[in-house]
Amino acid sequence: MFLQPPPLLLFTHFLRRRRRLPHLLHVHSSSLSTLSHTLSHPIYTIWAANTGLGKTLVSAGIAASSILSSSSSSTSSKFLYIKPLQTGFPLDSDAAFVYRKIPQILQRRNPRSTLLASNQTLNVSIPAAKMKLGHNLVQGRDLSKNGFGDFGFYEERKVGEGEGVGSELICKTIFAWKEAISPHLATEREGAVVGDSDVLELLKKCLEIGVGSEGRVLSLVETAGGVASPGSSGSLQCDLYRPFRLPSILVGDGRLGGISGTISAYESLTIRGYDVVAIVLEDHGLENEVPLLSYLRNRVPVLVLPSIPKDPLDNLMEWFDESQSVFDSLKGIMLSSYKKQVDRLHEMPKKAQEIFWWPFTQHKLVSQEKVTVIDSRCGENFAVHKVKDQGCITQMFDACASWWTQGPNAALQIKLAREMGYTAARFGHVMFPENVYEPALECAELVLEGVGKGWASRVYFSDNGSTAIEIALKMAFRKFLADNKLLLDLDDSSIELKVVALRGSYHGDTLGAMDAQAPSPYTGFLQQPWYTGRGFFLDPPFVSMCDGVWKIAFPKKLHHEDIILEDTSFNSRDQVFSKSRDDSSLASIYSTYISQELLPSSGSRKISHAGALIIEPVIQGAGGMLMVDPLFQRMLVKECKSRKIPVIFDEVFTGYWRLGVESAAELLFCQPDIACFAKLMTGGMIPLAITLATNDVFESFVGDSKLNALLHGHSYSAHAVGCATACNSIKWFKDSQTNPNVILGQNLLRELWDTELVRKISFHPAVQRVVSLGTLFALELKVEDYDAGYASLCGTSLLLKLREDGIYMRPLGNVIYMMCGPCTSPRVCSQMLETLYTRLDEFRQENIQKANEI
Amino acid sequence: MFLQPPPLLLFTHFLRRRRRLPHLLHVHSSSLSTLSHTLSHPIYTIWAANTGLGKTLVSAGIAASSILSSSSSSTSSKFLYIKPLQTGFPLDSDAAFVYRKIPQILQRRNPRSTLLASNQTLNVSIPAAKMKLGHNLVQGRDLSKNGFGDFGFYEERKVGEGEGVGSELICKTIFAWKEAISPHLATEREGAVVGDSDVLELLKKCLEIGVGSEGRVLSLVETAGGVASPGSSGSLQCDLYRPFRLPSILVGDGRLGGISGTISAYESLTIRGYDVVAIVLEDHGLENEVPLLSYLRNRVPVLVLPSIPKDPLDNLMEWFDESQSVFDSLKGIMLSSYKKQVDRLHEMPKKAQEIFWWPFTQHKLVSQEKVTVIDSRCGENFAVHKVKDQGCITQMFDACASWWTQGPNAALQIKLAREMGYTAARFGHVMFPENVYEPALECAELVLEGVGKGWASRVYFSDNGSTAIEIALKMAFRKFLADNKLLLDLDDSSIELKVVALRGSYHGDTLGAMDAQAPSPYTGFLQQPWYTGRGFFLDPPFVSMCDGVWKIAFPKKLHHEDIILEDTSFNSRDQVFSKSRDDSSLASIYSTYISQELLPSSGSRKISHAGALIIEPVIQGAGGMLMVDPLFQRMLVKECKSRKIPVIFDEVFTGYWRLGVESAAELLFCQPDIACFAKLMTGGMIPLAITLATNDVFESFVGDSKLNALLHGHSYSAHAVGCATACNSIKWFKDSQTNPNVILGQNLLRELWDTELVRKISFHPAVQRVVSLGTLFALELKVEDYDAGYASLCGTSLLLKLREDGIYMRPLGNVIYMMCGPCTSPRVCSQMLETLYTRLDEFRQENIQKANEI
Repeated sequence: MFLQPPPLLLFTHFLRRRRRLPHLLHVHSSSLSTLSHTLSHPIYTIWAANTGLGKTLVSAGIAASSILSSSSSSTSSKFLYIKPLQTGFPLDSDAAFVYRKIPQILQRRNPRSTLLASNQTLNVSIPAAKMKLGHNLVQGRDLSKNGFGDFGFYEERKVGEGEGVGSELICKTIFAWKEAISPHLATEREGAVVGDSDVLELLKKCLEIGVGSEGRVLSLVETAGGVASPGSSGSLQCDLYRPFRLPSILVGDGRLGGISGTISAYESLTIRGYDVVAIVLEDHGLENEVPLLSYLRNRVPVLVLPSIPKDPLDNLMEWFDESQSVFDSLKGIMLSSYKKQVDRLHEMPKKAQEIFWWPFTQHKLVSQEKVTVIDSRCGENFAVHKVKDQGCITQMFDACASWWTQGPNAALQIKLAREMGYTAARFGHVMFPENVYEPALECAELVLEGVGKGWASRVYFSDNGSTAIEIALKMAFRKFLADNKLLLDLDDSSIELKVVALRGSYHGDTLGAMDAQAPSPYTGFLQQPWYTGRGFFLDPPFVSMCDGVWKIAFPKKLHHEDIILEDTSFNSRDQVFSKSRDDSSLASIYSTYISQELLPSSGSRKISHAGALIIEPVIQGAGGMLMVDPLFQRMLVKECKSRKIPVIFDEVFTGYWRLGVESAAELLFCQPDIACFAKLMTGGMIPLAITLATNDVFESFVGDSKLNALLHGHSYSAHAVGCATACNSIKWFKDSQTNPNVILGQNLLRELWDTELVRKISFHPAVQRVVSLGTLFALELKVEDYDAGYASLCGTSLLLKLREDGIYMRPLGNVIYMMCGPCTSPRVCSQMLETLYTRLDEFRQENIQKANEI
Repeated sequence: MFLQPPPLLLFTHFLRRRRRLPHLLHVHSSSLSTLSHTLSHPIYTIWAANTGLGKTLVSAGIAASSILSSSSSSTSSKFLYIKPLQTGFPLDSDAAFVYRKIPQILQRRNPRSTLLASNQTLNVSIPAAKMKLGHNLVQGRDLSKNGFGDFGFYEERKVGEGEGVGSELICKTIFAWKEAISPHLATEREGAVVGDSDVLELLKKCLEIGVGSEGRVLSLVETAGGVASPGSSGSLQCDLYRPFRLPSILVGDGRLGGISGTISAYESLTIRGYDVVAIVLEDHGLENEVPLLSYLRNRVPVLVLPSIPKDPLDNLMEWFDESQSVFDSLKGIMLSSYKKQVDRLHEMPKKAQEIFWWPFTQHKLVSQEKVTVIDSRCGENFAVHKVKDQGCITQMFDACASWWTQGPNAALQIKLAREMGYTAARFGHVMFPENVYEPALECAELVLEGVGKGWASRVYFSDNGSTAIEIALKMAFRKFLADNKLLLDLDDSSIELKVVALRGSYHGDTLGAMDAQAPSPYTGFLQQPWYTGRGFFLDPPFVSMCDGVWKIAFPKKLHHEDIILEDTSFNSRDQVFSKSRDDSSLASIYSTYISQELLPSSGSRKISHAGALIIEPVIQGAGGMLMVDPLFQRMLVKECKSRKIPVIFDEVFTGYWRLGVESAAELLFCQPDIACFAKLMTGGMIPLAITLATNDVFESFVGDSKLNALLHGHSYSAHAVGCATACNSIKWFKDSQTNPNVILGQNLLRELWDTELVRKISFHPAVQRVVSLGTLFALELKVEDYDAGYASLCGTSLLLKLREDGIYMRPLGNVIYMMCGPCTSPRVCSQMLETLYTRLDEFRQENIQKANEI
């Protein structure tokens, strides 16, 4: 029985008023990140499962333990307490509480030790400042913008008369509002607004205070409210602080219901990639620590604090005394965990060198110093460990887009992580054949409505580009044989099926995919003894920008006297892609050339048939980011279709916005019979590939016997987590509400690489050619012939410098490229191009110098 | 500067006393699950972000809305309210509250309508019962075990005098304790214990009440406390109820700090695979719904209830009046979401048939009814949609182990889901070459300490078994060429490298992997026009149990007069694997046979060299679950090693506990030079593969040029999520604390398939042979020759019946198999074997009947 639901009232009726929703998480990305934090001493974040659980008491307890232990051992120490967001100011000030309490505790327990304590509030909203200073005093001040001012709220005191080395307590509040409510509400009510990137930048500066100090240093950052309480901009604090990914202490809830709240808060932190090193909670007689430890399988310590006196007049000194051993223990856990982290970061390059076998890597050329230790990533940025300056974690833009797969910005990464968790919990992995489950079905639907629209009717799932290609070839050949039934009557050994393919193309690393490419550095006998190039390999014409102009470079066979000059160079890229070129004389020259190349050939023993065309539309990636003249590819597809040769588009690299459109086929104005997608399809998170096919192709496998079916499959075909990730990122990238780069109404990204900067680079004397399209910018360095090609190391010095600038790139021989994600801000791209230009100048100067020295 | 932490006090000092930790999540798996729930009407779970947020008011509000709307439209309706766990009883009883309130509301708003209301409490702890009945009354009763009794707590009343069709309100409390604390504490203090499976079984029964009723039916299950509050056994409620995965309403927190608590609770539910269809919270003037909606990107409605009167004497009638529109809206959302779910489940098979292209599937043979709709999985069980009886979601044991990959039980699945979320949030995907990051390094370390221990020194990552094999072959051939440098001086075209392989083995679907297998149904020209078997293919001897005895079946070439009978049959499997067989005469017969087969051969034009041995150790999976005589494989390895032919173990199927040991090499007592692992390595969650190699193999790629390196790699090589998942499941499976099947001190699983039952099945007249080892049980059905092999459909009717029994299997031609996970309880395996035996009898009877009819 199906129930007819009553007309559904819109739930928003119950929101008293619609308000502008904060642009959650659209932060951290408007400029190239320069965030970093030191590893010279431990820095922790204090989170809580809810408001009012005693975060500040825990902060003070750790501070006291840290300062007291050093004062009793007569070493100096520095304790840095930072409260980035404080509401209820000046009545409430967690920094002021710590500033007041620590001297009290110190004088009680070790009166002979000395301490210099300071407390500073950097940015105070006007209402909060008025409350502290009075109305008139505030009016006279010079206020910075956004409703905040720096009123010089600073106090310091020295306690103790002892001889021992003095310790230092530095308390800082970065932003303060008057009302004792959530920062996002206080922001709104007091008109004092701060963007996430400003919070992070100031926090970065504050964290630098401890660097280079002598003696023991410990820093704490105390958040406001619960882990997912909004900050000023409305971003949840667990998202806001994520780029730093500081190790965390969680203050749990010891009350009835507190087990659940503590576990959920812990999960919100871990599902954002934080490491929680300890949980600490107040005793309420319920032994909440027992189920918590069970849940944590004893992997994370849970510490229990004595009951906190409820009397507001209690100065808490006795409570701090009782809690001393707990805080000593907590501090011990923090220090040992920090030490473990730093030790591990230091040993990782050596271990990696010893036991990894990296693909495409000559291990002899990778010294230990060259190994990059990646501690985490946030959106487009790696967080990388650098050994210099006592060690730090610093951000770098992942301009190799983690090897051409990567797409998410910080917001999408968190979203996908959550969806992956959900899908793994809901489905784990479930077998695909003869089954259906939501992520696989939705993924197939989205793909057919998107990149397959208008031609594809079936979706075949596999694991990566290479397997998708092998499947595509099997499909194409079967279709070809079905269309040419006579061939089947011949003796198998007398016919040979070949592909038509373009020289310089690359379709994957498994044998079948390799056999579809022309001989290359990857295919020699030493690399792949089983390689046999099974193709008719055509030399295509390439397009690139040189000295500000887009030009076609023709292969030898095409140096045709009939080619008219105006057909071969263009002032804009749009002209290159114009469909009107079909009427040019060049189009018919291409057709003639292609027809000649497709003439049937007979090898020594077998008759070879062209059973499939396979091309990477527009850009040949691994071949060196070569742009094939789109007119040539369009003519090629046309000629093959007219001969009933099935057409495969290998969109593993080009698909899903890499070239600024969802499918590169859109740039060619023609459709394949079969197409392969992978890499960016899951947003660049995990492996999944698809091979799309027309109904005609599918029908050639339908029959009465299982033996006619396509007997190719991998265990994880259409694995749920991959499909769900694909669904989410496919939708995210094409929706202008989530991807600011999508041009509304057009299925197109706006120009990400500044046209003028690209032009400027194309004039640079160190540059041979430039290609920019969609998320890709590539250039070929001008080198002597002997130094060109895949094995070239000529760009190494240039790339190492760019890494110092915070841009992580990887060469393709003498071709270097930068890739961003489909959501990356064009401002970030421009910054990278500018940095590149500067480094190109240096690179050229060095090369000239070197040449002179020789 | 590195700080030396002080001696770390064990944090457990702060736990007042150590207690037995509840065995969280080790539930749901001790017997074959029979859980199911109807889809004939909507069933929802009510969760809350914390205790005391008004779950029961929301339940009552929905109940009132549901009953009133049907009474006003003069249709009958039934509302079922279930409180599985109630503490504070009898003073607190949420069921009693609903039972009392609804009639009040109904009489106030629609006095002419009629309602039959009942309230029942099924199992009450003795202290709670004493409180209700008095001490003496309880003592006389017959009490069930575990400290609970059914005291017949039942009340009912009829209200309204109207003519309209009467509605029904049924309230049930399943378990009740006296103290108003968390159920796990009440359990302990009152000695009234209930296991998770009992809660689920009783809940299942209660949920059946609404089935088949006329008119509108709506059921609610109200949880206790927060989402992650422990139940009676200590299992978190969000884990406890997970097998049902009922759609959910979350009661959020409108107070200060409530945004964070609500979001975290929502995330704890979603990361366990629940669908939350709406959030509802009480207004506290903070507009918490605004940031919540922003976080949810408006995809989940957030409804706001008026402030709840704090006066305990308030009968809440006015509040319910004010809330009416909110509850009507909430109920509308619940009904429409239910309808959407049911509609989707119904359309899925058809859509799947239309747009999927399943691997290894002849689409013509798959009718719409044969398509299985999988709504979710929990541990080893699918939750499957069945159309019969108005539709239901029912559990089935995934005995094809989702195509040989699957391992987790429910606890591990949730753990892996969380870790996948963490890793995706921390790393997303980061490029591997020349980089190091924790999951990849830890995974490599674990693998080398585990399956690679004693021989492997390098880890090469790829995406699936097939790619791992292609990499292995490239490694082996290079090593062979390095050992035989002379070959390199020859003209490439004059030598050919081949593999030594066993007939019936299968190494993957990409061309290189296929070329390493002997011709098979998968390799014909129509399937793979590029296939060329590039091997010396040997016929191996196979072992299986027939009529209670393990016997060797020899290939023709080995029908040797010297074979002594006592060498060829065994009373136990252990004898088959005994190393002492090396001294038998059969061992030398094997060696002689192998030596002959390895004699160098020269083909027509080229000289063929055996450049690699590749075998699936012990079991050839896709070939039909064939057990090769381990003595034969050991001799083969020995002979190849003596000839410097690199040895590859394809452990893609056999590895990671599939055969009861972490690496099947342990069963052979010999080590390879190269080995491939995939499938179960990630616990069967997502694709990841590795190729392990010795240092000698690695060294053959080290040189001055990049062109000497192994130029094979996939974009997602060593992807972080895959590596982290592998780390977690590798550790989980081998740890006897998490995997109850691991025999302490031995790296071995206990016997999962009852030896006597296996023996019994081997005698069954329908059975040709049986193999059971580790997690695998397989049998070959006795069929006429023409019906044997991969294309056979003979087992279909048997498997369809087993699906009715809740066991999901998939045939390999006339071979059928059941696989469990490494943690599956042997009791579940026995239940499956018993079911199988019964169905085999029927199967045989039917076949005899069919034969007679012909």
